[in-house]
Amino acid sequence: MNAGAKGGERRLITGFSNPTVKFLRSLRDKKHRRAEGKFLAEGLRLLTDARTMDRLPEMLVMARGRPPHPLLAELESAVAAAGGDIIEMDEDILAKVTGKDNPQAVCGVFTEFDTSLAAIDRAAAPLWLVVQAMRDPGNLGTMLRTGDAVGAGGLILLDDCADPFSAEAVRASMGAIFTQRVATARWEEFIAWLRGGAGQLVAASLRDAVPYRDAGYRAPCFVLVGNESRGLPEAYEAECDLRVTMPMKGRADSLNAAVAGAVLAYEVIDRLG
Amino acid sequence: MNAGAKGGERRLITGFSNPTVKFLRSLRDKKHRRAEGKFLAEGLRLLTDARTMDRLPEMLVMARGRPPHPLLAELESAVAAAGGDIIEMDEDILAKVTGKDNPQAVCGVFTEFDTSLAAIDRAAAPLWLVVQAMRDPGNLGTMLRTGDAVGAGGLILLDDCADPFSAEAVRASMGAIFTQRVATARWEEFIAWLRGGAGQLVAASLRDAVPYRDAGYRAPCFVLVGNESRGLPEAYEAECDLRVTMPMKGRADSLNAAVAGAVLAYEVIDRLG
Repeated sequence: MNAGAKGGERRLITGFSNPTVKFLRSLRDKKHRRAEGKFLAEGLRLLTDARTMDRLPEMLVMARGRPPHPLLAELESAVAAAGGDIIEMDEDILAKVTGKDNPQAVCGVFTEFDTSLAAIDRAAAPLWLVVQAMRDPGNLGTMLRTGDAVGAGGLILLDDCADPFSAEAVRASMGAIFTQRVATARWEEFIAWLRGGAGQLVAASLRDAVPYRDAGYRAPCFVLVGNESRGLPEAYEAECDLRVTMPMKGRADSLNAAVAGAVLAYEVIDRLG
Repeated sequence: MNAGAKGGERRLITGFSNPTVKFLRSLRDKKHRRAEGKFLAEGLRLLTDARTMDRLPEMLVMARGRPPHPLLAELESAVAAAGGDIIEMDEDILAKVTGKDNPQAVCGVFTEFDTSLAAIDRAAAPLWLVVQAMRDPGNLGTMLRTGDAVGAGGLILLDDCADPFSAEAVRASMGAIFTQRVATARWEEFIAWLRGGAGQLVAASLRDAVPYRDAGYRAPCFVLVGNESRGLPEAYEAECDLRVTMPMKGRADSLNAAVAGAVLAYEVIDRLG
């Protein structure tokens, strides 16, 4: 058990050097998130969304002297009833934790999920989103949010992606981090897993591709999107069961990676959903 | 003429207090961009994209002692040939201008375009993107990029949007700021202009809406997307000629605004393009 979570406690923290403050601040760092197996979600809206999905933080952190808010009161009761910690701290200390100068700030500590491919039941949804080396946490959050909207099963992160449990990705997911399965794997590991069952791997591509509208998608369909600048490695595209093109009429660059994934996901779900 | 642009000059700047450095730094601020009628675009890739679209900066700013690069050399020749200023400065000064600690940094100063509705020829494209109170410059850039990809005519910004000429929006547009028309207007002004000619106003909505697939789009089609958190005001939705719904199967929030705009734009362009 870490410095923060003692279980069912209600505490007031008044000093910056408190171990819980250090613990919370450490969760801004990926290495510490991995070591602790925890992540932070910030903001009343996000925490309320999580609660409606039956996901409660094991530690709820609020500012002392905050203005009362009915949703926050409900959240506090729910966390306390579930045996979680309720922590109050001075505004300036909380600002150090969240990086935001906002007395209405609130954040919660959640346990990271099992992100192994083995935990994925591919038959649970007609569509799964897959990203390779996606570096922007905002894009990852957007992919999670899109996945939620189209009824995808989850997001599979290949190779060196940004961390889906970073505060920025969690925020951009608008709660979808709590509804979507998340798995991380190396490409070789993913392909071995994929080929061990049913599953069509689809990518937007310019090589040997068919138009993306009504392109013969089959469930479970795995829509693969590559790195923001480099796209997908050629060998990955070659491994796909279906390569599709989307109209690019412009003179500038291609689509934003998360946008391309969403347009493709909506097309797939229209056919399979 | 401002402190920076003397026309056709080639200069070396070695002091932080140089008026050109102050001028360049001031362009990070919207108020100064408006006052000067100029904006900054950063990075060799973006500037090279601009050049391929026959858009050259009136001032090109590079680090002294930078490693040679063929594309940068071509850019420099083109700017000089067009009578633009070529400015070199020490790396640490350039880092203050771009906010990036990168000796390969390069940036250019461009004149802002005419952003009046009067400059828009609605018949020039089957699709126009319209955003209302979109606050995130990255989202604006993504909308511009999507518009470029689908062959939209441009982006119309209503009410209090982020500035499309901010460095962040320009970067996220991946060059599309140079290919898309940009107009800014208040809602009342936009509606008066729109109703003065042909044009179908379409928005994603939950009120009195039809499915977005094959929903009877007509060119020129104006796809309207609202603010990231609040969506569109009800009165704006009511004014639309067509309200469409997109599948939302999730338990979390709605789509990212730029993603929703892109999915809708791709549907429209499939019917009209």
